[in-house]
Amino acid sequence: MYSVCVRDHFMVAHSFKGETFGPAQRLHGATYVVDVEFRRPALDADGLVVDIGRAAAALHAVLETLNYRNLDDEPAFAGRNTTTEFLARAVFDRVRDAIRAGALGETARGLARMKVTLHESHAAWAAFEGDV
Amino acid sequence: MYSVCVRDHFMVAHSFKGETFGPAQRLHGATYVVDVEFRRPALDADGLVVDIGRAAAALHAVLETLNYRNLDDEPAFAGRNTTTEFLARAVFDRVRDAIRAGALGETARGLARMKVTLHESHAAWAAFEGDV
Amino acid sequence: MYSVCVRDHFMVAHSFKGETFGPAQRLHGATYVVDVEFRRPALDADGLVVDIGRAAAALHAVLETLNYRNLDDEPAFAGRNTTTEFLARAVFDRVRDAIRAGALGETARGLARMKVTLHESHAAWAAFEGDV
Amino acid sequence: MYSVCVRDHFMVAHSFKGETFGPAQRLHGATYVVDVEFRRPALDADGLVVDIGRAAAALHAVLETLNYRNLDDEPAFAGRNTTTEFLARAVFDRVRDAIRAGALGETARGLARMKVTLHESHAAWAAFEGDV
Amino acid sequence: MYSVCVRDHFMVAHSFKGETFGPAQRLHGATYVVDVEFRRPALDADGLVVDIGRAAAALHAVLETLNYRNLDDEPAFAGRNTTTEFLARAVFDRVRDAIRAGALGETARGLARMKVTLHESHAAWAAFEGDV
Amino acid sequence: MYSVCVRDHFMVAHSFKGETFGPAQRLHGATYVVDVEFRRPALDADGLVVDIGRAAAALHAVLETLNYRNLDDEPAFAGRNTTTEFLARAVFDRVRDAIRAGALGETARGLARMKVTLHESHAAWAAFEGDV
Repeated sequence: MYSVCVRDHFMVAHSFKGETFGPAQRLHGATYVVDVEFRRPALDADGLVVDIGRAAAALHAVLETLNYRNLDDEPAFAGRNTTTEFLARAVFDRVRDAIRAGALGETARGLARMKVTLHESHAAWAAFEGDV
Repeated sequence: MYSVCVRDHFMVAHSFKGETFGPAQRLHGATYVVDVEFRRPALDADGLVVDIGRAAAALHAVLETLNYRNLDDEPAFAGRNTTTEFLARAVFDRVRDAIRAGALGETARGLARMKVTLHESHAAWAAFEGDV
Repeated sequence: MYSVCVRDHFMVAHSFKGETFGPAQRLHGATYVVDVEFRRPALDADGLVVDIGRAAAALHAVLETLNYRNLDDEPAFAGRNTTTEFLARAVFDRVRDAIRAGALGETARGLARMKVTLHESHAAWAAFEGDV
Repeated sequence: MYSVCVRDHFMVAHSFKGETFGPAQRLHGATYVVDVEFRRPALDADGLVVDIGRAAAALHAVLETLNYRNLDDEPAFAGRNTTTEFLARAVFDRVRDAIRAGALGETARGLARMKVTLHESHAAWAAFEGDV
Repeated sequence: MYSVCVRDHFMVAHSFKGETFGPAQRLHGATYVVDVEFRRPALDADGLVVDIGRAAAALHAVLETLNYRNLDDEPAFAGRNTTTEFLARAVFDRVRDAIRAGALGETARGLARMKVTLHESHAAWAAFEGDV
Repeated sequence: MYSVCVRDHFMVAHSFKGETFGPAQRLHGATYVVDVEFRRPALDADGLVVDIGRAAAALHAVLETLNYRNLDDEPAFAGRNTTTEFLARAVFDRVRDAIRAGALGETARGLARMKVTLHESHAAWAAFEGDV
């Protein structure tokens, strides 16, 4: 299995609901450094899993829909705790939609699987992995 | 599949038995920077894989049983080479026991799999991965 | 010149005022991974710049005064843009005050200089450096 | 499953053929920081996945066949785009051949799987993973 | 003293002249991950050392003049060994010229000093530091 | 001012004397990832601060005098606490001696200053910096 991974980041405010979260129930924020790993069993005719430039541009476009926002005000996340693992899934879904819409080119049709990792600090990260 | 990973470290002395180990047969030591990745197929009611604060505290408690020790003197490891991969398994077993004992809360019952990685330098690491 | 550096992090919400900031004028947030480097020309009687355990505890206590907060609501920062470089100075001042109050022990009287670095992503950081 | 991973690097020139590659069609170059992860279900008699020293030496020998070269001139890669993912596979094949030739010792017969990751910058990497 | 640092990268081919360089006399290449640290004694009216967005854009524009090139063919470097430390100075000079030309805005007039670091692998880097 | 920095590591056992050290008074150990930064005001005739290959080899030779040892048994450190900052100075002195003995070549006569940093974990490091 081949992989290609690109990295970018976004910065948001949010708060969590539930006693589990302790002081994180207050409005606070995070930088998420995002790694998106694309996997496929064979390379395309150019020798690529996916074009890194297009992958990076598609990821950046997805993160622009989240960047510099208070996630508590985002209708798409109403009633949900936007935990790091939840957001990893949200980024996964949006990148998968971009792939299906052709944003990564025809070659990206061969992608089999994807893993999205969000690093929230030097000491913790979360991820979502699934089929494309 | 969702993941959450927390990082901590511990510092030990030890020596190895066997010609394979060359100069590492002498008493020496290591810092192990430890990543524990918890995995489950669905999030809990709070939107979590596991509470990062509780996971970090449980990992820290496990590492306190190893930290600042000469592993050559630990009865639990008698007759064994405490290689990085062996220690990854030892940390795995102790964190799994903590999960079973409820140290990560009821929600941690949904955990399916775990990977423990020990970084021994900037250029080498070892890991153990298995079902919880 | 000797140095010792310890690392921790905090997570906040804030917004900026001024056209320069573009979309960062919206309420958003950041994780700041913080490095505090302590410097002195000679070691103390124990062979230390500063006790790493006490330094880490003192830094953690300072960051608790900022962590999980919306900095737009903090009276101490009223009317100021809490940029990364501004916050590096704020952390510097609070750690220096802790040193002067004896939180790092008598030995810390020998500290000459300090540098506080705040990493806001994998691609940008800011710092403040000055005499203690 | 146990893993051991060792890191090294190599530096090459190359160019790519095809409009997809834009400015990377020009002769340019890259540093590839290489991680090779070896996996096996059980440890050997010494408590090892593989001897880290031998693994590092075998990897270094493989990378010497690529290091400080213009890959456009390498007969082994004639007519191919030496993309990061393609090179991850090439390193994988050469390390696997070294294992089969006994370069990692008898114990390496127990290796089940291997993942080779090539980091091409702070923001992108590619990998190939397969059975040994 | 305040600092702000931004990171980017570029990928080039080159070769070195002189026996000192051993196999690096052959045409090869490198990825350089570049950190540019801007320093000034006081913040501007917005609370900034320099606008991170403008700094990143100016650095990217400078690196585009080097990226995806064979430095042996660059007239600006004729007769010179484009070592990592030499290139750190070249990037320094071009960023300083951009500052003087106003590419980082009026506020950048207050910049006092700059350090450019080029990471050539996980185990080596070089830098040039000087007054702006 | 130009810099070149090379990285390596060593692994030792030791213990500390004094109540300040708490559990670190027990025999334990550490991996130290070592960065040695060499500085000089002008490049040599080859365009170098110092040859990276020779610098790496000289550093490796110095670290071999410490690697895989129990520092409590080293006569050179008798009666001293081998703290991270103390060891940074010890490495500094030994590399400086190697420079003076010609191990880095004639060109290394131009070196002005050196900084040795020892990373003891992902969250702490110490350094010694001085004139060569």
